[in-house]
Amino acid sequence: MTDPLPGWSEGPAKSAILEFVEAVTRDGGSDFVAPAERIAVFDNDGTLWCEQPIQVQGFFVAERVKQLAAADPALAQRQPFKALIEHDHTALHALGKQGILELFFATHGGMTEEAFATLAREWLGTARHPTLGRRFVDNLYRPQIELLALLRDRGFRSFIVTGGGVDFVRAFAEDGYGIPPEQVIGSSGKSGFEIVDQRPVLRKLAELGAFNDREAKPANIGLHIGRRPILCFGNSDGDLAMLRYTLGGEGRRLGLLLHHDDAKREFAYDREFRLSPLTEALDKAEAYGITVVSMRRDWGAVFGESDSGT
Amino acid sequence: MTDPLPGWSEGPAKSAILEFVEAVTRDGGSDFVAPAERIAVFDNDGTLWCEQPIQVQGFFVAERVKQLAAADPALAQRQPFKALIEHDHTALHALGKQGILELFFATHGGMTEEAFATLAREWLGTARHPTLGRRFVDNLYRPQIELLALLRDRGFRSFIVTGGGVDFVRAFAEDGYGIPPEQVIGSSGKSGFEIVDQRPVLRKLAELGAFNDREAKPANIGLHIGRRPILCFGNSDGDLAMLRYTLGGEGRRLGLLLHHDDAKREFAYDREFRLSPLTEALDKAEAYGITVVSMRRDWGAVFGESDSGT
Repeated sequence: MTDPLPGWSEGPAKSAILEFVEAVTRDGGSDFVAPAERIAVFDNDGTLWCEQPIQVQGFFVAERVKQLAAADPALAQRQPFKALIEHDHTALHALGKQGILELFFATHGGMTEEAFATLAREWLGTARHPTLGRRFVDNLYRPQIELLALLRDRGFRSFIVTGGGVDFVRAFAEDGYGIPPEQVIGSSGKSGFEIVDQRPVLRKLAELGAFNDREAKPANIGLHIGRRPILCFGNSDGDLAMLRYTLGGEGRRLGLLLHHDDAKREFAYDREFRLSPLTEALDKAEAYGITVVSMRRDWGAVFGESDSGT
Repeated sequence: MTDPLPGWSEGPAKSAILEFVEAVTRDGGSDFVAPAERIAVFDNDGTLWCEQPIQVQGFFVAERVKQLAAADPALAQRQPFKALIEHDHTALHALGKQGILELFFATHGGMTEEAFATLAREWLGTARHPTLGRRFVDNLYRPQIELLALLRDRGFRSFIVTGGGVDFVRAFAEDGYGIPPEQVIGSSGKSGFEIVDQRPVLRKLAELGAFNDREAKPANIGLHIGRRPILCFGNSDGDLAMLRYTLGGEGRRLGLLLHHDDAKREFAYDREFRLSPLTEALDKAEAYGITVVSMRRDWGAVFGESDSGT
């Protein structure tokens, strides 16, 4: 038999995944789960692609603010735009959630959904990671692409449940992960239905719909999926509620937590990453029955063939 | 070849559907649509099942209010409960949207999602239509079940986009229509993540999430699906915005509007149905390129074999 997860090193994490998939798909077995109930949920930033030094969408927002400031120089003198343009991280952190939201509304709002999708796709088509020397969309984790393909082959439907903007992630999730837009759940602004030149469109509004992090993740799983997942994969405290929600159902379940401990091939970080720390989930993983995946130990490859076999 | 739509009478509506499905699935044809983009959306009440004399969920709410009033007699003296218990429709209409919401929060809120699903399933398992002599779940329209099966066979993913409560519709949509919970978009309350006796659950809160009617339908299609549908089927003015949104995309599209003009086999109504009138959509159907389906003319059967061939 061909190994469905060649990018995963032999060890407890790989075994846990293969045993789980085998158990829930073995017809007549005691852990069998009907195909309709094979729902898996994955965080995106730091779980399916690289989130260092900041989440990719942060680079997109910064680029958009520069474009807006070029068209309207007064913008560059106003917060929160000033702090972003001047890379003043102290000021940015001080602006808090409202400041961050204003950045998103200013750079994402006002456009039709189609105009935004085009803009995001164009940017993602060329934008490169500052140190890894590849486009952001080439920083998808190869072992996770293999896992998503294995789950698809075995009748699972995998959803992304991300704190990132839903429309931004949809712009690359189908090509990158094989996950269609209706299986992406994320943070979102509201949108309005309008007729523009006789053509009905949706326009992104400057009003928050959902900030999809922490306890909001299981709530949005309930709203969008309506079924408790049987597999959940995250990498931060923002994913702990949906990990616990997944594991809290009846029957066999699998919760996985990626620990970034590989400074050589990617980055090593956990508690100190202020934008999305990993603290409580790491401390309580064992107590909650969550399997910790060590990038260094459990992944033979990270991004592609070239970095494998280390 | 076997007729995939035996419950549909030969005529312009049946032809429009079969020609559309053939055109968008013919590999290499000028109207070909890739499987990933074959998204269809259906209203539920009055489009997939009977909504007369009031929407089915209204009967469910009334039954729940009676149960609550039996446990707490003071409730029966307060509005909006008093009006419902006394069948005072004038008072009910006067209470408006807020009164209706209070009925829903009182009867749906406070429960865990699992407790609600059990309650709704039990009620739907036995509750009967007041005049048609069958359970509500046996009042699904047979021609629509055939259409959903045809679309599924041809690689479409069909979503319900309903003004009804999402959790209520999910309680029967999979068994009844073959539509899994993640393909049901509806009105919703917010829900909260809680740990109860060490077990993580979602609890329905007394706070409105979305009232999924009219312009909110295309907005929620954007949020949940993220792709403009290519087929839309509705039956009231509440579906007009999503019909126009569907037809407003590029390439071949199909918009269908069911007209209830069959007092003999079901009900005949349109403009005068205050809970969900059909006025503007009927008047403008031709101008907007919407195909009107006449229940009397276009459906050989309505509910099942027994009423076919009339």
